[in-house]
Amino acid sequence: MTRRQDQGGTATWTTEVLVIGGGFAGLEVGRALGRAGIPTMIVDRRNHHLFQPLLYQVATAALSAADVAEPVRKILRRYRSVQVILGEVEQIDATLCRARLGGGEVISYRHLVLAPGSGHSYFGHDDWAAHAPGLKTIEDARSIRSRLLVAFERAERCTDPEEKRRLLTFAIIGAGPTGVELAGSISELGRLTLAREFRTIDPASIRIMLIEAGPRILSGFPEEMADYARDRLARRGIEIRTKTPVEHIGPEQIRMAGQSIDVGLIIWAAGVRPSPLAAQVAETDRGGRAVVDARLLVPGFSNVFVLGDAAACPDAEGNPLPGLAQVAQQQGRHLGRALVAHIRDNRPLPEFRYRSRGNTAIIGRHAAVFDHHRFKLRGWIAWLAWALIHVYLLVGFQNRVLVSTQWLWRYLTEDRGARVIDGEVAEKAALQKGPSSDA
Amino acid sequence: MTRRQDQGGTATWTTEVLVIGGGFAGLEVGRALGRAGIPTMIVDRRNHHLFQPLLYQVATAALSAADVAEPVRKILRRYRSVQVILGEVEQIDATLCRARLGGGEVISYRHLVLAPGSGHSYFGHDDWAAHAPGLKTIEDARSIRSRLLVAFERAERCTDPEEKRRLLTFAIIGAGPTGVELAGSISELGRLTLAREFRTIDPASIRIMLIEAGPRILSGFPEEMADYARDRLARRGIEIRTKTPVEHIGPEQIRMAGQSIDVGLIIWAAGVRPSPLAAQVAETDRGGRAVVDARLLVPGFSNVFVLGDAAACPDAEGNPLPGLAQVAQQQGRHLGRALVAHIRDNRPLPEFRYRSRGNTAIIGRHAAVFDHHRFKLRGWIAWLAWALIHVYLLVGFQNRVLVSTQWLWRYLTEDRGARVIDGEVAEKAALQKGPSSDA
Repeated sequence: MTRRQDQGGTATWTTEVLVIGGGFAGLEVGRALGRAGIPTMIVDRRNHHLFQPLLYQVATAALSAADVAEPVRKILRRYRSVQVILGEVEQIDATLCRARLGGGEVISYRHLVLAPGSGHSYFGHDDWAAHAPGLKTIEDARSIRSRLLVAFERAERCTDPEEKRRLLTFAIIGAGPTGVELAGSISELGRLTLAREFRTIDPASIRIMLIEAGPRILSGFPEEMADYARDRLARRGIEIRTKTPVEHIGPEQIRMAGQSIDVGLIIWAAGVRPSPLAAQVAETDRGGRAVVDARLLVPGFSNVFVLGDAAACPDAEGNPLPGLAQVAQQQGRHLGRALVAHIRDNRPLPEFRYRSRGNTAIIGRHAAVFDHHRFKLRGWIAWLAWALIHVYLLVGFQNRVLVSTQWLWRYLTEDRGARVIDGEVAEKAALQKGPSSDA
Repeated sequence: MTRRQDQGGTATWTTEVLVIGGGFAGLEVGRALGRAGIPTMIVDRRNHHLFQPLLYQVATAALSAADVAEPVRKILRRYRSVQVILGEVEQIDATLCRARLGGGEVISYRHLVLAPGSGHSYFGHDDWAAHAPGLKTIEDARSIRSRLLVAFERAERCTDPEEKRRLLTFAIIGAGPTGVELAGSISELGRLTLAREFRTIDPASIRIMLIEAGPRILSGFPEEMADYARDRLARRGIEIRTKTPVEHIGPEQIRMAGQSIDVGLIIWAAGVRPSPLAAQVAETDRGGRAVVDARLLVPGFSNVFVLGDAAACPDAEGNPLPGLAQVAQQQGRHLGRALVAHIRDNRPLPEFRYRSRGNTAIIGRHAAVFDHHRFKLRGWIAWLAWALIHVYLLVGFQNRVLVSTQWLWRYLTEDRGARVIDGEVAEKAALQKGPSSDA
């Protein structure tokens, strides 16, 4: 176990390994170290590990927050040598091997594993954040869900046709997997679920725009799969605008290609920015990711590792690996094992090799793409494979049962369960106050 | 259907029946009118009907918010004559038969059914609300859950024994069914679930106080059942203080019987206050409830009804009925049928007769009390009856399946699923900022 001391009112802990972040990477490191009984502290700003690949389903009212979140300390509870701390690391002094928490406590470590993940990047337009929420946390998902459902509620109540049209126009910026999944899921929510329940909304009047600055959607996938996805999305009535950088985002308005469009909701799925903690211990690349070698080690140190979204780790060709959940998970597993052998038997640290298990993007009911080298699936079978894989990857047996039950239920009924509009948003909408007032 | 018009920019709707509130009472009225095809508008400030009897399970991380909430418009979607509006009624002019929404829209009705429910009453100490949240809405439940879990997280991190003791002291004010259920559920959360996951918390140091101004707990139940509950709670280590009115509530401090106690969390389960809308149409009793006759009619009107928590409706002996979900539900069913016959065939309005289906209070695993006239249960069998009845009463088949699955899972594993700490609370705790800073 870790030791604690009180020195002049400030608590100081000492631990063999300090892991910062309880995401896919940090959790795997913690597991490996815990299994070996090595004293470890895991610090995270949230009490829960988040299964981010399904977060868009929380944002579109298909799943509950608790279905995709599991407490970090519950996942690691069997490992007595691992202590989980809800806290925010404010400063790292890698030379002195110390990290300081927001409350002033100091953690003194022998090895540091930095896996803090990433937030949104608005490419220098931080003022856009207020009008175009991104999707990284439970609160992001709840906020998008509330705004989405409130747009429909307001439209139902609205008697001005122009305002009604605006309320039912949704803009998603960024056509990577998250953007595509959000567009598909919102379209189904509107067409299948909500259309049955509203009296004054014509489902055909719901307008969904998927906006991408690059030349095509799903740039990480082969072109033929992106074409398939594009075709499927278009059949569902989703407008795709590629080569269209967004010029301005205001409250309920978006400008692109010189044209302003009034919208009911804007969602940001375009850019991520690694946690600024990475820059405290390492050189960063253009995207803000810490440059590490293939052992995940920060050059110049023998005990500081960065992995996951915050790391620019080279692949076999020397190109940095993408910020994917499976990259983070494999890095965590690799480093966990490597550290155990290193700490116990002083073994050298091996290099990390990424093995892609395939990429998926879900378009909607019965439609998805799955890409794994020569093995490419699309349509029904990719959709089923996606569902099975994601349920399997969920942490916690209860979550698997609950998510499966809900998916099966939704599939059979074309319904959604988790349609709670949160308090503050509901109150504003009820009073019709705020920028989109009808009055 | 309801008709809409635009008059000088302000929308005006006309409807046969306006129902205010989508709780147990309003929903039943809406169903009956919808079945008969009578044009009806239901206005609620929230988009969801809330199954309040299980809200304490959301507050103690046993269920998710979506499990106990179902969109009002989904419940009523098959009734084409019913239109649901997310909105806040600000003013009622019962003489002119008009109600005005917060956005300025006017609804002109022939019959008004007022079922707005109730909020908390802090008995003139509204400043207590910030320190002692009550439990009426989804947000209340989420806020209590976050504060509860954060108290444990902070205690784990805390190195000062006195502060640690404070963080693990929980005060529940009011020992009716909600207070008893919260106390039992928090005790189980601490003893069974969390104790396994924390490294520096001794489960025996968790202190739960159930504070009641009246002479005994569960005043609505027979004395022998209250005694049984008291005994069971005491065995679980819960301190019960009856005849103890709270004198002051501050941030993380409570004073009673001249003694101040530092606490980690205070929950208010003591008093309710009917919605102020009731006073706009009727005389109110001392508790703020609208005085109605046994037909639920406001004296002086032939078309204004108040029911549910906001109504003081006399029973056969002339005493006002208690504010219970089953009273509201039965009143809603009664009035719905009565209104259909009245509107269609001009039948006179019959009087409402309440038939108690029994009261339950759950103390914890394998322990509950159930009271139904001569039929009194306690222990295992009452607990099982409670679980079956509550699952049956949940609106929506999916919710029943999910809640049953989760209960069964929790029962077998002694675990809880929905342990998400919400963003703002987590961030504060991570930084150890706010009033309970360790620094």
